[in-house]
Amino acid sequence: MTPRIASNFLTGSATLQLVRDGQLTVAQVAEDHLRRYDERDATIHAWKVLDKERVRQEAARLDATPADQRGPLHGLVLGVKDVFYTRDMPTEFGSLIYEGNEDRVDAASVAILRHLGALVYGKTHTAEFATTKVGPPTTNPFNPNHTPGGSSSGSAAAVGSIIRPATFTGIFGFKPTWGAVSPQGLKFGSISLDTLGVFGRSIEDIQLVSQALGVRDDVPPPLRPKPLSECRFAYVRTDQWEQEGTVLEELRYAWASSRRRLVRAGAHVDEIILPPDFDFASGQYHTKVMAGEGRSMFLAEYTTSKPQLHPMLLDWVERRTSPSRKEQVAAYDHIASLRPVIDDIAGRYDALIAASAPGEAPFGIESTGDNRHCGMWTALHVPCVNVPGFFGPNGLPVGLTLIAPRYEDERLLSVASQVAKVWMEPRLGQPPAPDGVVHLST
Amino acid sequence: MTPRIASNFLTGSATLQLVRDGQLTVAQVAEDHLRRYDERDATIHAWKVLDKERVRQEAARLDATPADQRGPLHGLVLGVKDVFYTRDMPTEFGSLIYEGNEDRVDAASVAILRHLGALVYGKTHTAEFATTKVGPPTTNPFNPNHTPGGSSSGSAAAVGSIIRPATFTGIFGFKPTWGAVSPQGLKFGSISLDTLGVFGRSIEDIQLVSQALGVRDDVPPPLRPKPLSECRFAYVRTDQWEQEGTVLEELRYAWASSRRRLVRAGAHVDEIILPPDFDFASGQYHTKVMAGEGRSMFLAEYTTSKPQLHPMLLDWVERRTSPSRKEQVAAYDHIASLRPVIDDIAGRYDALIAASAPGEAPFGIESTGDNRHCGMWTALHVPCVNVPGFFGPNGLPVGLTLIAPRYEDERLLSVASQVAKVWMEPRLGQPPAPDGVVHLST
Repeated sequence: MTPRIASNFLTGSATLQLVRDGQLTVAQVAEDHLRRYDERDATIHAWKVLDKERVRQEAARLDATPADQRGPLHGLVLGVKDVFYTRDMPTEFGSLIYEGNEDRVDAASVAILRHLGALVYGKTHTAEFATTKVGPPTTNPFNPNHTPGGSSSGSAAAVGSIIRPATFTGIFGFKPTWGAVSPQGLKFGSISLDTLGVFGRSIEDIQLVSQALGVRDDVPPPLRPKPLSECRFAYVRTDQWEQEGTVLEELRYAWASSRRRLVRAGAHVDEIILPPDFDFASGQYHTKVMAGEGRSMFLAEYTTSKPQLHPMLLDWVERRTSPSRKEQVAAYDHIASLRPVIDDIAGRYDALIAASAPGEAPFGIESTGDNRHCGMWTALHVPCVNVPGFFGPNGLPVGLTLIAPRYEDERLLSVASQVAKVWMEPRLGQPPAPDGVVHLST
Repeated sequence: MTPRIASNFLTGSATLQLVRDGQLTVAQVAEDHLRRYDERDATIHAWKVLDKERVRQEAARLDATPADQRGPLHGLVLGVKDVFYTRDMPTEFGSLIYEGNEDRVDAASVAILRHLGALVYGKTHTAEFATTKVGPPTTNPFNPNHTPGGSSSGSAAAVGSIIRPATFTGIFGFKPTWGAVSPQGLKFGSISLDTLGVFGRSIEDIQLVSQALGVRDDVPPPLRPKPLSECRFAYVRTDQWEQEGTVLEELRYAWASSRRRLVRAGAHVDEIILPPDFDFASGQYHTKVMAGEGRSMFLAEYTTSKPQLHPMLLDWVERRTSPSRKEQVAAYDHIASLRPVIDDIAGRYDALIAASAPGEAPFGIESTGDNRHCGMWTALHVPCVNVPGFFGPNGLPVGLTLIAPRYEDERLLSVASQVAKVWMEPRLGQPPAPDGVVHLST
């Protein structure tokens, strides 16, 4: 018997190919991942629910499926953030209120991926309702003394999560256009902000899953990604950059270095300072929407289980810290007026490039870090993807965000696949690749 | 023993008062409603799920609750449209795909009302996913040959539902500001349009439930509603009124008659023709958002259970009839730009007044009727309430819609309570009062 590569060191796409070719069974894939879990999770604490018996049964069921009835994701190992309903695992939303909650519901996204053959592997930790900054016990896989970022701490630590957790853990995190994927069965913190996304070790893995979830542009992107030498990028920032703590040294380094590499590859690169309207930090537009909607979204938990609700959420519901409805509506309208503006700006480039976070993951796991850079893009409903490639003074990863107009998701991922090549080139294969799980998150 | 009035002939608020005073048990309330169900539902077909044993057990549980542990809605009979998860009843969304679906989840709104003492009585019929126009078997309680309106046909027929079904069945239907109540646990057809609402026999019932659901203005409305003699109203319409079938004779009658009554009560009344931007019929803004979002919202059902999906939804998912994403985004931005405009116009009046439907309920139950009048207000996210009071040539009810700026819901209901008095005066107590159930719907 020739020794084989443990599948947890592969991307999801590579694993699927081996399963398709009969070189690997889903049971073997499951065992590889369970072994990795045993080795690492006592330190990382990524997984909230991982029932080995259930995983083995699911793997056996998939292996027993005749070849002609297998879906395109047959054998893909899928982690699900514990803010999505999953019909065969407890769903607790990171909250004591829902401890041991045995629903029988699959979120729409989980149902789709499961039907197409994904092995629904386990539930990952989340900050309470994916909303507070108080983290679960999860640590950064690069250094357990640092946060993996939030709110998707579990997904972040195991592979990564959207933008902030993705940059903190050095992986790809993709947040599609708001509404492109049904949020059905997701626990809402904010109905106009919550966006379902995907995290993985490669852009190809993300493309695989987001296509399955129906993320499609009006015009399909070219089969062969456009070469960087024909691409135009704009590095975008706001006046916020002048504020203390917004830009750490390693972000400046990544900014300059990433740019040099794009220019070297022949790309045209502009720099844009967005008008003051886009200063979400001073305007607090994102915060006002989040707290204003949170006031309504957590009323059920407040009504039934007030003592177990995080004080921040309690304050929102009781209107101590949430804005007036008038302020909330003004924030809605302001953000809405900026959406066509940013679409127009982004439409002139192959992608906008922005900071994913002030720098590498901060020390300590008490707080999941600062969302001042990524909140704006979420509120603007544009698709964005974190592309890793850089490092900070503590050897922790630093990524940057690529952004496209609404509903140009496929094109964005295609561009990101090219950008990733030049940003990640110096360290290909180098970092402690976390695992090959693809994650559904928010 | 003195004979008592059957509680199904009372409003919910009146029933609660009698229960609070110890003059009525919840068990008696339940029996009154079950008797009404036996008498009527073979004709009306309002109820999808009504398990008498479960209702009796719930009533007994409520009666056994010590007085000091009873909530403010103790004994309120609550109907829930079958697009909300209910943990103790099947949830089928009007779809074959979910037949017999036994989840263990309460929608956030159901959880709140249940916790506050409501008797969760049964599930009402809905059009498939509350989205298609193909109705369930439900008939109009005024005349079983006519539709009760949709999509909340069940709620509509039993008491009423939002705007269209409310006007077709002669009751109050309240659609609060979008986002004021958490849609958690509601099956989404359209994430930016779906709005949870309440239907009842009186404005007071609606106030009771919407307050429990956390619908609050920044400034509480006066304890005593403002007299009509101090109120200013504007009757609003668009160019759409020139189109065939948009305005039937009975709507013209209601329009003129309602106006005369307000003027007679001393109100100031203006007439406004909204600018062409508001012509949602020609612009198809509402339709584009609904079909565009529907393309994503029904992908899970399409992926897992395509043959059982309504052809209209199939066409949306397969992009035969849904707009391009570019058109969808343009519709979003256009509607968003109108929201502050309509807030500004509505802010100059105590309420805007608009048509709820072209006229009385059309003949036949195959289609749940025309939503051309009410779709716009839903898309604009403003609160609106149907106030009944008028009748068409077939003796079926005709109501009108009152509208306020976003998040002035309480003020709107307060004004509506005064308007209802003069519109309904000539027929107080006259119509075949359907039943005293308060309904959660969309």
